[in-house]
Amino acid sequence: MEFRFRQKSLRDGLVSSRLQALLVSHLPNIRYLCGFTGSAGFLLVSGAGNVFFTDVRYDTQAHTEVKGAKVVVARKAPLPALGEWLAGHRKRTKRWTIGIEAEHLTVADRKRLADLLPSGIRLRNAPALVERARMVKDEQELERIRRAVGLGATLFERALAVLKPGVKESEVAAEMEYAARRAGAEEMAFPTIVASGARSALPHGRASEQAIVPGGFVVCDFGVILAGYCSDQSRSVWIGEASDAAGQDARRAYQAVREAQEAAIAAVRPGATCGQVDAAARKVLRKAGLGRYFTHSTGHGVGLEIHEAPRVAAGQTEELKAGMVITIEPGVYLPGKWGIRIEDMVAVSEHGCEVLTPTNKDFLAVC
Amino acid sequence: MEFRFRQKSLRDGLVSSRLQALLVSHLPNIRYLCGFTGSAGFLLVSGAGNVFFTDVRYDTQAHTEVKGAKVVVARKAPLPALGEWLAGHRKRTKRWTIGIEAEHLTVADRKRLADLLPSGIRLRNAPALVERARMVKDEQELERIRRAVGLGATLFERALAVLKPGVKESEVAAEMEYAARRAGAEEMAFPTIVASGARSALPHGRASEQAIVPGGFVVCDFGVILAGYCSDQSRSVWIGEASDAAGQDARRAYQAVREAQEAAIAAVRPGATCGQVDAAARKVLRKAGLGRYFTHSTGHGVGLEIHEAPRVAAGQTEELKAGMVITIEPGVYLPGKWGIRIEDMVAVSEHGCEVLTPTNKDFLAVC
Repeated sequence: MEFRFRQKSLRDGLVSSRLQALLVSHLPNIRYLCGFTGSAGFLLVSGAGNVFFTDVRYDTQAHTEVKGAKVVVARKAPLPALGEWLAGHRKRTKRWTIGIEAEHLTVADRKRLADLLPSGIRLRNAPALVERARMVKDEQELERIRRAVGLGATLFERALAVLKPGVKESEVAAEMEYAARRAGAEEMAFPTIVASGARSALPHGRASEQAIVPGGFVVCDFGVILAGYCSDQSRSVWIGEASDAAGQDARRAYQAVREAQEAAIAAVRPGATCGQVDAAARKVLRKAGLGRYFTHSTGHGVGLEIHEAPRVAAGQTEELKAGMVITIEPGVYLPGKWGIRIEDMVAVSEHGCEVLTPTNKDFLAVC
Repeated sequence: MEFRFRQKSLRDGLVSSRLQALLVSHLPNIRYLCGFTGSAGFLLVSGAGNVFFTDVRYDTQAHTEVKGAKVVVARKAPLPALGEWLAGHRKRTKRWTIGIEAEHLTVADRKRLADLLPSGIRLRNAPALVERARMVKDEQELERIRRAVGLGATLFERALAVLKPGVKESEVAAEMEYAARRAGAEEMAFPTIVASGARSALPHGRASEQAIVPGGFVVCDFGVILAGYCSDQSRSVWIGEASDAAGQDARRAYQAVREAQEAAIAAVRPGATCGQVDAAARKVLRKAGLGRYFTHSTGHGVGLEIHEAPRVAAGQTEELKAGMVITIEPGVYLPGKWGIRIEDMVAVSEHGCEVLTPTNKDFLAVC
């Protein structure tokens, strides 16, 4: 039912964009619009009905999954099948302008598409209609996201059970991923980050064979996919003495990141811009003298994709709306020393936000 | 050292393609050429030297990993930094034609790039120079692939230890993936397929929450990434009695797939075309009356990517060369009933091929 509603909204959007059809090529957009979960296909959405083109590998699956669109199984590739379909429906399609998803379609596929279009049909880069619709989650999506976040959060408990000096980063990741699968996750939402020692200062330090050593943080950044929806969470654990000078420095920096993260969460409400939320985190870290070590943006949307709109970054004028789901994840990274990141997922609500991630954020030291 | 050799070969290729530079945007190509393993960047290769553009998240990592290229860390996004660099080197670049990777660059990024080019610089879709170079693996790559395949093969032993009626597909996948991580795999090369019962007739049936039931095959298709290189392997196990009528039917079909797979392997040698290898498998299945159930191609290249050139499919005229690494994976899929796929990785050698996958292919029944 939700698929037909989404398709209808998109068709309304096409009218305002003066497009007769949209060729949806980005797989998460296809899944959002018609339910197909495979890895090859194109969905043509138009006022004259929707058609989904895929290849023989997905024959059974497409017929089972796809809602609200006719399924065409191409003998070879889906694109030529689309060309044939357009040619076979000349009366209906002859003056169409078809929107394409310029952020996703490759230059080569655009050329192939242009080469097989019957005369009179034009292509135009469409606005990001589906991505914009996907920013605001419906109740079913919010429920799925809550479940994914809940499952994802249990992985950190598993990490804490094994985290200690001498254990390899990859072993910690292995335990977390095993727990995810056992709990029913379809897959990890992205390569698990378990970054210790100086590697924790790499914002994207994937779990390596390095053993965890005292005197630094371990940044764990992890997420699962459940029923198609992603979770995303980070926690940072100090390894070593918490009471010596290094431990005290670490604790102070940690508290600053935590306050920055909580300030950003407090700024989340309908009508606030993404830039304002980012600024709220940045202000706290600047005051703590750590502003220049916060080298990435504050967050991003999460849903069918681990990174989706909106971007929660400096200067972003996008206004938050109830139903949007974003991460809040400020961090500081001292090159060659260590890094800290604290990340929760939040859903924008009527008057503020619901913090979806249940995990405690107190400073934790393990030695 | 291998990076400089690869860069030099590419620069020679640019000369023959009448390009002054190539903008490499596809991440596996970037990794192949300069060693960068992160998720954001562009490598500009030209006779005047190579420049790698990334963003602040990858500052430390790029300086550590990138070989044979100057590293430019953009304050914002890498593309505008490239524009500035080109403008800052006008003398050198003013009449350049820069090749782009049309199969990978999006329409939107191409437009952004075109909009920021100083006047006089043109873009042209480049031939797939890096993909073609990557088809033939060097000794170091072959060694890494052997290690990935060896590690990957151990997962099937783990699967066999837990496969039985009543166990969920996802539990089998969990055990395999845990074993992979514990053995040092960086991540899985693709979502693990454990497809049982009628789901085994879906060529891409990812592990679900379904419990394994007697009377069908379980198709396991799995691979790991180790030191950047992928493994890919499939085995199919009969669940149920092997001696009753259904079991005998299953065994006959299994033998046909096995013979098809072995015939294709026997056809692999330098100078044979990919189409000939595909035909060798197809011929056996056609003779067994199963030709129409073999609905996909016979194989594909494997390396830094799980699917890369060449395609081992009907009509492909690409000739095999020593050093190419491909999968050989015919299958038959009886909709609503069950499916079978047997897949090994092979490396083309001087006079034939080396089968990299060590796993036995005898018919196996579990009940």
